[in-house]
Amino acid sequence: MESECCNRGEPCKECHCKPGNFAKVLDHGSVELYDFCGSDLKIVNSARVSFNKRHDRLEDKDPSLIKYLMRNGHGTPFEQADFTFVVKCPISVAREWFRHRIASYNEISGRYVQLDPEFYVPDGAFIRSREGRPDEYIFEIIEGQVERDIIRDMMEEVYTSCYNIYEGLMSLGLAKEVARNVLPVGLYTQFFFKINARSLMNFLALRNHDHAMMEIREYAKIIELFFAAKLPITHKAFLECGRKAP
Amino acid sequence: MESECCNRGEPCKECHCKPGNFAKVLDHGSVELYDFCGSDLKIVNSARVSFNKRHDRLEDKDPSLIKYLMRNGHGTPFEQADFTFVVKCPISVAREWFRHRIASYNEISGRYVQLDPEFYVPDGAFIRSREGRPDEYIFEIIEGQVERDIIRDMMEEVYTSCYNIYEGLMSLGLAKEVARNVLPVGLYTQFFFKINARSLMNFLALRNHDHAMMEIREYAKIIELFFAAKLPITHKAFLECGRKAP
Amino acid sequence: MESECCNRGEPCKECHCKPGNFAKVLDHGSVELYDFCGSDLKIVNSARVSFNKRHDRLEDKDPSLIKYLMRNGHGTPFEQADFTFVVKCPISVAREWFRHRIASYNEISGRYVQLDPEFYVPDGAFIRSREGRPDEYIFEIIEGQVERDIIRDMMEEVYTSCYNIYEGLMSLGLAKEVARNVLPVGLYTQFFFKINARSLMNFLALRNHDHAMMEIREYAKIIELFFAAKLPITHKAFLECGRKAP
Amino acid sequence: MESECCNRGEPCKECHCKPGNFAKVLDHGSVELYDFCGSDLKIVNSARVSFNKRHDRLEDKDPSLIKYLMRNGHGTPFEQADFTFVVKCPISVAREWFRHRIASYNEISGRYVQLDPEFYVPDGAFIRSREGRPDEYIFEIIEGQVERDIIRDMMEEVYTSCYNIYEGLMSLGLAKEVARNVLPVGLYTQFFFKINARSLMNFLALRNHDHAMMEIREYAKIIELFFAAKLPITHKAFLECGRKAP
Repeated sequence: MESECCNRGEPCKECHCKPGNFAKVLDHGSVELYDFCGSDLKIVNSARVSFNKRHDRLEDKDPSLIKYLMRNGHGTPFEQADFTFVVKCPISVAREWFRHRIASYNEISGRYVQLDPEFYVPDGAFIRSREGRPDEYIFEIIEGQVERDIIRDMMEEVYTSCYNIYEGLMSLGLAKEVARNVLPVGLYTQFFFKINARSLMNFLALRNHDHAMMEIREYAKIIELFFAAKLPITHKAFLECGRKAP
Repeated sequence: MESECCNRGEPCKECHCKPGNFAKVLDHGSVELYDFCGSDLKIVNSARVSFNKRHDRLEDKDPSLIKYLMRNGHGTPFEQADFTFVVKCPISVAREWFRHRIASYNEISGRYVQLDPEFYVPDGAFIRSREGRPDEYIFEIIEGQVERDIIRDMMEEVYTSCYNIYEGLMSLGLAKEVARNVLPVGLYTQFFFKINARSLMNFLALRNHDHAMMEIREYAKIIELFFAAKLPITHKAFLECGRKAP
Repeated sequence: MESECCNRGEPCKECHCKPGNFAKVLDHGSVELYDFCGSDLKIVNSARVSFNKRHDRLEDKDPSLIKYLMRNGHGTPFEQADFTFVVKCPISVAREWFRHRIASYNEISGRYVQLDPEFYVPDGAFIRSREGRPDEYIFEIIEGQVERDIIRDMMEEVYTSCYNIYEGLMSLGLAKEVARNVLPVGLYTQFFFKINARSLMNFLALRNHDHAMMEIREYAKIIELFFAAKLPITHKAFLECGRKAP
Repeated sequence: MESECCNRGEPCKECHCKPGNFAKVLDHGSVELYDFCGSDLKIVNSARVSFNKRHDRLEDKDPSLIKYLMRNGHGTPFEQADFTFVVKCPISVAREWFRHRIASYNEISGRYVQLDPEFYVPDGAFIRSREGRPDEYIFEIIEGQVERDIIRDMMEEVYTSCYNIYEGLMSLGLAKEVARNVLPVGLYTQFFFKINARSLMNFLALRNHDHAMMEIREYAKIIELFFAAKLPITHKAFLECGRKAP
């Protein structure tokens, strides 16, 4: 995985992550695998209870069984594994993310704490224009270096202005929860995201996909790497069955 | 209800609402009851299937039955009625709203359309400061007229700047979905919100409550009026049982 | 629809159903459409809120829009329509049915009432043996009239014995909820079943399918007729997209 | 815990359980804790993300925080811990159990395998009659030894008859899935049951309760012991807040 821990080689005091469980995404974002529970074995055992059987270790036939479940819409066994991620992403990305309802969320609260001045400024291919018909979503990079610099500068400046106003409003006594209304959706937020493998496959089918917004797709790619690492047989079946959640 | 239809007395061509199904909230927001399905009778009939009975009309004992269900945690019959609202509210409010997962949502998309320049600027008691301990949430109005004017002016100005930058970025060719990152969470959004009466009572218990953020509470108050109008017996039982969702 | 109302031509006093909303299934079972809410129009309008638009009536392009949503996994608009059925089926069928969790249920209670002596005895092609490998589920009718008669007689007799014991246990003072343990899963039960169109399509994809148990499939066929009658455009798109729930 | 592993003192080859993770219930039933994920610490950390904080170990104030969350309806952090049980119980109990929808299930299938002849016969205080009004559910033990013996004999005999007919039908070629219709709901079934701590508290509030059917309550008592063992602080708060799920 092209992950990058803030503190390579040993558990990290600052971010509480372990090496290999953390990856940077976009300019200030990250995905950390906080917790994982279950296994390919647990998935097949929960399926096998249909036949009143249970095994202690994976067997040669189990990849076929998992593929059979996946292809035939037997989705419930895949609910037996759970991932908990700590995600840091722009609010504009989080807004799409939270539409996935079969999952558990806890998020940093702008009611309780002052939010940090971290904002998303696109770079590389993410500075893009949209071409084609409304239902096509073809994007093309904006090539001109001048336009690119202007775009980035404009965004950075307005972010800074907004954050200054945010602080100014609070210094006038305005409650955090009201003052935050001036903060743009490019602001980074942070949340716990717990999801079972079945619902996660639906997330990946939709978000690690051509039609998805490029920014959320960056996160979905990383999450798919964690998924593949923890449930390799299930992930393989997911790919072989056309990336459709069962 | 202190509702205000944009076009009183006859169905409205512009907003497609019928009089009495529409209420304004905050400075630019609204709640429209788009659809309702079910009745107190349907709720008791679904409960009464336990006893293999069904009635054609409400009977004298039915309010007691509904109260009995409510008090004893028999929540499923209350899933038999559904409300569909079209809500227009600031993103900062919508972000809390969408945490309610047992509901259906469809929202205007900043990927597909240019968003309108409507932003939330607090007024009256909503211009407030927070007092007390972190877990108390006591708010006090900011009384000084000078501070109040400055706060409102600051917010309006930064909103205008952000919107100008938003348009400027798009005029440089940047895709809407990227440009919108500079839009503050005070921006109004619009969404379909469909929820059954059981889940709605949970929404009301949490959001039409002292601890709730004042802005979302304004919406929850209106929604509770619609709830009371459509399911009067269920609403009465909700009140009598301490506003706890069964 | 090959439905058969107990009382054709006018609303029925006995079963509270209206003609055309009721269909018999298996030997003693039935499906009644108790309530329906929503429309193809509501589905497209909830989708169209993404574009900040709403129409008063279906337009020529709407079938294409619905098909586009279905094919591309935009499932949420289909949550805007709800069906409520009253189902009477064997417990063996209900046990599969209740596995569908995105739905609301209320069922007759053997704790509260004495259950009626109605039991499922298969007939026609339903008297079947299973052939082929464990994961194939090929069934063949048992042709011999003698075997068929014996099978039906054996089932009827043991059902009668069980019901007599059930009554005998209660006459000895045993509580209904304990006595019912001797009642076979061929006993008919009755329940309210409310489900939105999205979840219903998943039900139909799995239960009106070759792999489904023949008995539950009979119910799913009828339910699909009601679905097609109420949401014709959505149903057509469901068929055209390979009977996969979005 | 008054659990009883089939094979005390060392991991069990036959039932794959570890000592202390297994308890017998009723005459042939059991609850095994198959898997557990999460901790009181994870719960407080997911709550604390609201304040942008995380700790490595539980602190003195954490029990107060958990109690605060519980009392004020902040339920989502409790979704961060998951229990997976393997349950063996009568179908009459499983039918109530599966009504809990925020959970994952996989069950032995009477379509695929021949079911074992294990049936529930009540004993002790479970041989009971119901007294009082319909909505009261007061049960009294049936004291007379003669009645008690007759009741048990009647049940055992009819169970045996049913099972013989079940086998007889299959020997005539009838498919398992049809033949099983003659098996009473007193038959034991077996299933995987995975549930997060929040939904589990709702299960316990309703099923380890005076109003619950005595048989399911036996299971709920055991499950509450596992809950208390794994999440002691959360369980204590659950008790102190009146056994209401947040």
